[in-house]
Amino acid sequence: MSRIFKIFIATLLICNLTACEDETSLQQTEPTNVPECGPQICTQGAALRAVYDGPIAGWPTVQTSEDTPFEEMAPLERPALSSQDLEVQLGEYLFFDPILSDSGQIACASCHNPDLAFADGIRSAIGDRRQSGPRNSPTLLDKANQPHFMWDGSSDSFEHQALLPIENPVEMASDIESVLQRLNADETYRSRFQNAFQTTQIGISELSSALSAYQRALTRRSRFDRFLEGERGRLNDQEVFGLHVFRTSARCMTCHSGPRFTDDQFHNIGLHYYGRRFQDLGRYEITNNAEDVGAFRTPSLRHVSRTAPYMHNGLFPSLAGIVNLYNAGGARPRPRAEFADDPLFPETTDLLSELDLSPEERAALVAFLETL
Amino acid sequence: MSRIFKIFIATLLICNLTACEDETSLQQTEPTNVPECGPQICTQGAALRAVYDGPIAGWPTVQTSEDTPFEEMAPLERPALSSQDLEVQLGEYLFFDPILSDSGQIACASCHNPDLAFADGIRSAIGDRRQSGPRNSPTLLDKANQPHFMWDGSSDSFEHQALLPIENPVEMASDIESVLQRLNADETYRSRFQNAFQTTQIGISELSSALSAYQRALTRRSRFDRFLEGERGRLNDQEVFGLHVFRTSARCMTCHSGPRFTDDQFHNIGLHYYGRRFQDLGRYEITNNAEDVGAFRTPSLRHVSRTAPYMHNGLFPSLAGIVNLYNAGGARPRPRAEFADDPLFPETTDLLSELDLSPEERAALVAFLETL
Repeated sequence: MSRIFKIFIATLLICNLTACEDETSLQQTEPTNVPECGPQICTQGAALRAVYDGPIAGWPTVQTSEDTPFEEMAPLERPALSSQDLEVQLGEYLFFDPILSDSGQIACASCHNPDLAFADGIRSAIGDRRQSGPRNSPTLLDKANQPHFMWDGSSDSFEHQALLPIENPVEMASDIESVLQRLNADETYRSRFQNAFQTTQIGISELSSALSAYQRALTRRSRFDRFLEGERGRLNDQEVFGLHVFRTSARCMTCHSGPRFTDDQFHNIGLHYYGRRFQDLGRYEITNNAEDVGAFRTPSLRHVSRTAPYMHNGLFPSLAGIVNLYNAGGARPRPRAEFADDPLFPETTDLLSELDLSPEERAALVAFLETL
Repeated sequence: MSRIFKIFIATLLICNLTACEDETSLQQTEPTNVPECGPQICTQGAALRAVYDGPIAGWPTVQTSEDTPFEEMAPLERPALSSQDLEVQLGEYLFFDPILSDSGQIACASCHNPDLAFADGIRSAIGDRRQSGPRNSPTLLDKANQPHFMWDGSSDSFEHQALLPIENPVEMASDIESVLQRLNADETYRSRFQNAFQTTQIGISELSSALSAYQRALTRRSRFDRFLEGERGRLNDQEVFGLHVFRTSARCMTCHSGPRFTDDQFHNIGLHYYGRRFQDLGRYEITNNAEDVGAFRTPSLRHVSRTAPYMHNGLFPSLAGIVNLYNAGGARPRPRAEFADDPLFPETTDLLSELDLSPEERAALVAFLETL
């Protein structure tokens, strides 16, 4: 490669960070450079590629725990909204504006930073007066078709969830009425709302519409999207092997299936800390049903490699740690003597059991997850 | 591996996040699982391992650009300070307390979060009223022996740098006098300072002593530290290959040498955006010397895999991007016509030139950097 061309490439990289990442991805498929190809992958690689290069309908049968119904993988349907919509633009202003908090210091973007895939990179978010709640900030990317929101499903609508952080005393510590007063007193916002909603009075429904329109529009196409759309060369041998493990022996699609890689259900995987310092009963706090103790919403795996740390409490810093946990059959805390007869002490879901994945299969699984 | 043992391992992982990472590291050295071993590494691997398993004095000769003097790799001398020191403890309280900011919302830890290796994961930090400066927050780990601070070296002492963010209008937007008033009015702090410094009056020297004592004590032992200390099995074949590339053909030790992987000098690598929107003249803003235009302090590479994004302006999201930049000989912006005769328009350092590293060498270099 000539020096001029290299400088051209370097300039491209400097000008465009996305291009930079794409360049890296492309390099991984160069046939002369397959450093990930260990014995197992090399042996199975050719056969797997031949199958997975074909249409999804011909891919190997999915395995799930206890034959749980699953939804097949499919390209993600993306929202028709665009950054040109006035409502989306207004939502974007609001999303980055600390005017939504009483202190004038916290914005939605404080805990959902675009540079961090609209999450914050830390175990649990830090809000007003540096308070911290118990739960990890999820990414907001590709949520347009999500039916339940928050780790415990405490919200069932996009419009509703958008307002919850404003009144949460640990997050923005404000109240909707004060926010509406501040917005209505702001000439720029009055004119922006006028343009988007043809109203002279900013109300709760306009506020939640604008905020949720912007969040619905947040989407990023991943390497796996392009693979699903037909560019099968986007995944290298190890990643195809990981896709196969994901669909078969690791039984991941028991819960993480469909275009969003989630069943939208609530499961107890044993991280509830029942009766201990970090207890979080999850879904039970909303439903008060005993079977919901310690259950949390199955998160989408979309963009998962960019949203560490993981789990409702940000417990795991890396995907390798989670894969190891599931390989061992999940966490199964036993009740201490004082909880032996407690009817609320939860059982970890039967859907998890020992997987016996080889180190190579686990590494491939992580590599596959990194394409999502 | 028995189910009981796997549950034991999983429990260990859940109880101790550090252990979780160590477990992952250890797995990479399992002899039956070397998915990173491509042709070049397999061929050279045995010979390299034999050499690098021996003492540092016998390692292959270091190559630097223009034979720049370098300091040999060596285990890091760590501070004698411990978390038991009263001054360190007091510094820790202060570090996490937004009392240092006028808004009561920003603490040192806002931009130097322990979960993010004491950085913040974003291109440039967000401070008071969600303002953002032009420069990336560095990690604070293993800085005990650092002679200059800030990207432009505007501070030459640990005690001095610790106070700078307090008065920076974009960061904590406070002033030392107000902070001292707030601290002296706080009974708990009065008693903590009394215990640490035997003084009834909290002054600027006590404040900076406590803050810097805590920051000096921040250290984490990396996989490469253990390798240097003699546990040569801590690096796998690809990483040893990367170490070799780092020392030889990539000429990294031209600037990143010694136990801290920095020459503590200022260099212009071409990311100054002279005369453009994101212009940052770096060291020149401190010295007003023409040769310092666009020069920034060589950052340590310690913990570099945990401190993305990179460069003074957080331009690169990944190490692969930086390696590609250096492989191409750095950025060499040419002046537009209006700057053709501008004596201040900087030349990128001669220490950078085209490297011609293979994709495999670049991947190994990244793998090595991830051990630091």
